[in-house]
Order: sequence, then C-alpha cells, then structure tokens
Amino acid sequence: MALHFTAPEFARRKQRLLAELAARKLDGLLMFQQESMYWLTGYDTFGFCFFQSLWLGADGRMALLTRSADLRQAQHTSLIEDIRIWTDRADATPQEQLRAMVADLGGAGGRIGVEYESYGLTAASGKKLDAAFDGFATLEDASRLVDHLRVVKSPAEILYVRQAGKLALAARDAAIAAIAPGIDEGEVLAAMQGAVFKGGGDYPANEFIIGSGTDALLCRYKSGRRVLESEDQITLEWAGTYRHYHAAMMETVVVGPPRDRHLELFAAAKQAMEACAHALVPGKTAGDVFAAHAHVMDGHGLSSHRLAACGYSLGAKFTPSWMDPPMFYADNPWVLEAGMVMFAHMILMDSETDTAMCLGRTFLIGVNANECLTDAPLDLIVN
Amino acid sequence: MALHFTAPEFARRKQRLLAELAARKLDGLLMFQQESMYWLTGYDTFGFCFFQSLWLGADGRMALLTRSADLRQAQHTSLIEDIRIWTDRADATPQEQLRAMVADLGGAGGRIGVEYESYGLTAASGKKLDAAFDGFATLEDASRLVDHLRVVKSPAEILYVRQAGKLALAARDAAIAAIAPGIDEGEVLAAMQGAVFKGGGDYPANEFIIGSGTDALLCRYKSGRRVLESEDQITLEWAGTYRHYHAAMMETVVVGPPRDRHLELFAAAKQAMEACAHALVPGKTAGDVFAAHAHVMDGHGLSSHRLAACGYSLGAKFTPSWMDPPMFYADNPWVLEAGMVMFAHMILMDSETDTAMCLGRTFLIGVNANECLTDAPLDLIVN
Repeated sequence: MALHFTAPEFARRKQRLLAELAARKLDGLLMFQQESMYWLTGYDTFGFCFFQSLWLGADGRMALLTRSADLRQAQHTSLIEDIRIWTDRADATPQEQLRAMVADLGGAGGRIGVEYESYGLTAASGKKLDAAFDGFATLEDASRLVDHLRVVKSPAEILYVRQAGKLALAARDAAIAAIAPGIDEGEVLAAMQGAVFKGGGDYPANEFIIGSGTDALLCRYKSGRRVLESEDQITLEWAGTYRHYHAAMMETVVVGPPRDRHLELFAAAKQAMEACAHALVPGKTAGDVFAAHAHVMDGHGLSSHRLAACGYSLGAKFTPSWMDPPMFYADNPWVLEAGMVMFAHMILMDSETDTAMCLGRTFLIGVNANECLTDAPLDLIVN
Repeated sequence: MALHFTAPEFARRKQRLLAELAARKLDGLLMFQQESMYWLTGYDTFGFCFFQSLWLGADGRMALLTRSADLRQAQHTSLIEDIRIWTDRADATPQEQLRAMVADLGGAGGRIGVEYESYGLTAASGKKLDAAFDGFATLEDASRLVDHLRVVKSPAEILYVRQAGKLALAARDAAIAAIAPGIDEGEVLAAMQGAVFKGGGDYPANEFIIGSGTDALLCRYKSGRRVLESEDQITLEWAGTYRHYHAAMMETVVVGPPRDRHLELFAAAKQAMEACAHALVPGKTAGDVFAAHAHVMDGHGLSSHRLAACGYSLGAKFTPSWMDPPMFYADNPWVLEAGMVMFAHMILMDSETDTAMCLGRTFLIGVNANECLTDAPLDLIVN
C-alpha cells in the first residue's frame, strides 16, 4: 500500500465530489481521466492507455473496471476495494462489462456523468460506451467536474508541489552546470532528469523540452539530440515532479556572447513575466493574465513572435501532457482562486533572426498575492 | 529540419497508404494518432494532447490543422508544407475549421476514414467531429489502417530499432551496476534513463516500471521511491528508445540470496520465454505466442500468477504507452510477418508469497526465424 495522502484527506475529496454530483442531480460518475482517479483514490498507473473506468455512485460506492495488469496496481496504490477485471480477447466487450458493473451498483435508469474529455476514453471507446448504455441509463458530459475540484490544492497537496518546486530548481542547477560548447544535449537532459529522479521525483507528464540552434525555437520535445556550438542558444522547459505534482520552469540559455536580439527579447520576456505575476491574484481571470502578457509583448512589437497562450494550471497530471485547465488565453473567464498553482511562460520565437527567448515560473496563488515556487533570478543566463 | 528518414523512404510510405485508401475506396484519411503522423511525415510532437489532425487525400495532398505552439514544430520536424492553425478561445471550434480545411482540399461529399481509436481524439472531440462533418462527408472508422502498415519495419527503421536495442542493454548494465542493498530506487532509475539519454535516445512512451519489495509485483510505473533492503527483489521493465523506436526488456533482480520461490518462478519464466521465442516466426499468430506462454506457465501450475497477455509489437510510439498492436493474448488471429518487432515478457507475480519474477526480450522476426535485439543471458540476476 503506497497511499500518498491520509484517509481524512481522501474522505474530504470524496465529500466534495459527492456534493457536486448532488448539485448536478447526477446518480453517479464514470471517470476516465487518470487524474480524477488518482485524486479521488490514489490509483496510480498508466493503464488508462487501455479501456478502464472508475465509478462513483451518489451513494458513495466506488468500483473500478480495468485489465489484469492493473489489478495489483490498484490494490497497492489506491483505496479502491471493488476491482473488476476485463480480459483481452478479439471479441472483448469491456463497455458492456462496465454497464453490468454499474447495474450491479444500482445505476440502472439513472443520470450518469461521463468524462468524455479524457485520453482514457478514445472516440472509438466513447461510441461503444454510448451504445452499451443506450436504453440503460442517461449519459451526460461531466468532463470538467473533477478538474474544477482538483484545481484548488489542499495543504497536503501544496507540500508536494513545494517539493516539486525544489526538484525543478535542482534540475535547473544541473542544466546550468552542464551547458557548455561541445556538450551534447543528451548530457544536459540526463543531468536534469537525473536530478529529479535522485530527489525521489517522477517522470514528467510530458517530455522535457530541449532544443538548441534553430530548434531552440521549438516548444515541444522532439527526438534527435545535437552538440552545442561555441555560439549557441538552448531552450529548456522542464518540471520537477513529485507524487505526480508538477512545478515547471522555462529558460533559454545563451552559449557564448548573446546577440542584441537575445537581449531585446529577454527584456520583453522579463517585463511580461512581471506583468503576469502581478495579475496572478484571486479574482482575476485566466484571460486577464493572458492580456497582461499580450499587452507587454505587443508593446514591444512582438505580437508575431509570441504564442496564443502563455501558461496554465499545474497539478498531479499523467501523460501525454502536464498542462491542466485553466489555460491563459484570450478572454478565458476562469476566475483565479487561492490554492491554485499556475505556470506562466513567456515564449518568444523570432524566426526571422532565428532567436529564441523563453522564461517560465510556477506560482502558488495566495489569498491576496502569490508566491513563486520556482524562485530563481530573472536574469539572462549566459554560459 | 530534422527528418530522420530520407525522402524516398517517406514517399514509399505514402504510396503504401494511398494504395490502402484506394483499396478501401476512401477519398481521404483524417489521422489523429501521433504515431501515424510521425510515420507518414516525420511530425514529432506531444501536441496531440490538444485537438489536431493530419489529412491525406486520395489525390496525395496533405495538410495539418494544429495549434500555434506546433507550427514551427511541424515545420522543423516534418515534410508537411500546408500547416493551418486554430486558436484557443472559449468558443473555439477546431472541428469546424477541420471541415473547412477538408472542404478546401476537395473532400466534400467523400468517404473519409477517421482514426477514432486514438489518444489524440477524445470521445468529446469525436462527438464534435461527427457533428461538424454531418451532412458534409461520410466518416468511417479507419483506426487500424496505418497501424497495419507501421507494424512491418523497413530496413531504415530496423537500423533505429537496433540502436534502441543497444540503449536497452546499456540501461540494463547501468541498473545491474547500481542495484545493491541500501540504494534508492531513484538512483537506479536515474542511471537507467541517463544511459538512454546519454546515448542519444528519447524518453520512453511510458515510464520505466520500477518497484521493489512487495511493489516488485507491479507491472506499471507508480510514484514513490523506496530504498532496497539487504534481502529484496526489484522488478524493472524499460526500453531503449531511439528516434521514438522502442526495444524493451524486463528483469526481476534479486538482492541478497534468492528464495526457493524465486528459483521456481525463474525456471518457468525462462522456459516460457524460450517457448515464445520458438513461436515468433512468420505464419504463426499472436495467439499462438500467447498459447506457448500459457502452456508452459500452466504446466508449472502458475495459471493464477500469470497475466492474460504476454507481449506486443514495438515501434515508434508516443505516450501514454509503448505498446503497439498486435498483442499476445488468447486467440489473437494477427499473423506474424518478417520485419515485425515483438516484445515478449514473462510476468509471474505470486501474491501469496510476495514473489515476483519477470523476464522480457525484444525480437526481430526474420524470414524463417527471429533475432533477439536485446540479447542478454537468460540467467537469474542476483546482486
């Protein structure tokens, strides 16, 4: 048994979710997001790559349907007691087994919420689910229900986020120590990810972003490493991850003397970061934070070099991405609250001069201000 | 530009796919699997965490719809020339933009294949897709179309798989060197993943599995590391990954003197592995390989300690899992062919005595035999 939270903590979460089900007049919820299952029960797996679902009835009863490879995983990592197994065969019908399980737990004829927006429920599986439940119960989209509860972190969760912040800073130190002309990006990546693992941390929910030369202008991971030249730039976006909670950072490190364009872009990125940090307070919206970023960037004449989003919520996330809603994009009305953990990244990519400059920090929103959980100087790093 | 294959290689793949579209009388294909996009064009990203799709028309024209964060990613990593962008807003309708793109490329009124079985197309997005295309074109499930082409590797791909095999063996050496009483699992994980990164390799499509003590009986990654005791067991499943091609291995390493149960289970696992290796030849089915495994396991009275599947195909995979179809489960009729890369893992977990014993190797199927690409002695490892 490897539960990372106490029984009372899990009980509080369940009560919050049951209250939400009652408010929406739902008789139960079929969860397909691994994040929801981990939050509610501790269940920790990448088994969502196959069909599986966690049921919570309005009566508080829970049951999991999964494959045999995840039976012990659920037993060792979660408080789920009722675990049922479906078996791979050419004619396997796990969606019908799920209906039978829900019938068994009193869900027939009910209004059932479904996490349709989930990597754990592909469009193909969703069609089979709808077919299996047709005439048995009314299914209704409830995709963002648990997300809205997860977004505000409890004190117990914040302890893990703080640890993740420390691991992010350890990875940053490892990167800065490793980066030099003639060094392979793979050495930098090994040092950074190694710092997280040695500190008891996890794989991130998406790959660290690492790219140099013209590929410093990318903001996704890609295969294929490169050796740093004597005058170079390397963009890194990474997260310390602890108990799957993420604290992310982003930097573009200049190798050799910075070009003027690096300095210009850095000045704008730093100013935009400070503007965002100012907007990261309760009562402001995610759209307000984006507007603060865009105002600075556009004032510097950089509107064609910035992206259409500048950050997002962080939490206990599974692959393929550590990005959680809400995201900072234009007019997003999601209101910020105390206890939210938000990542702000200022991404400037100038394809005309092949210049990259990025800066990212993670903030914990407090009752009337915020705290940077990945606090490092906002200075241009030149190695 | 970081293409990992030559233009003629990509042209051959495209011809194979166009021939398949013609055979199925499809006017085009909407791809949502990142694996399909990488195979056809080189496009390398985890951007499938958001809605995106690659279109290939029967006329050979291609276009990608994605978000701004992936514009340069597609330009730098793929041969896609027509890249269109949708923008995050509260009222964003990327599925309708996709319909407009397909209309633009002559797809109106056609029969269009869709990869509904894809992490890149959630059930929620699938419903919006169907609604957007209703009355415009006929959508038809084509989920396994590219998978069936991808499963047989070209000579150029096999070079990368061989490199992945070398990285898997390097990670194995690093693990064996690190494992000892008093060592933290995190040190072992850092050494293994570090060996892959330093060798120019990638993140695996799922986390390496690492668990010791009673958690050696798990076959998924979970958060939370542990220090090895003087008498212990540690189960590791990992993959060397190069250009996203995987070569996987699995071992249970015993720390201190092995218990009798370890020896019994190891004997069965080794015998089952040899039986599977014997069945990994062209003309046999994936079900035949499973039967070979089950016959040995059940002959040892271990039917309740084995799983309902014992391996799968490997290739260029993205998160959340490196498992590719076909899988070795009962009666799977998928016929093995030369050029397939198959991972066989013998997993024995005895909860009564808390004993784990696992063994996994990756094989390249040849014209009348196979070759182990992760060749290491089938001996019990005791550290």
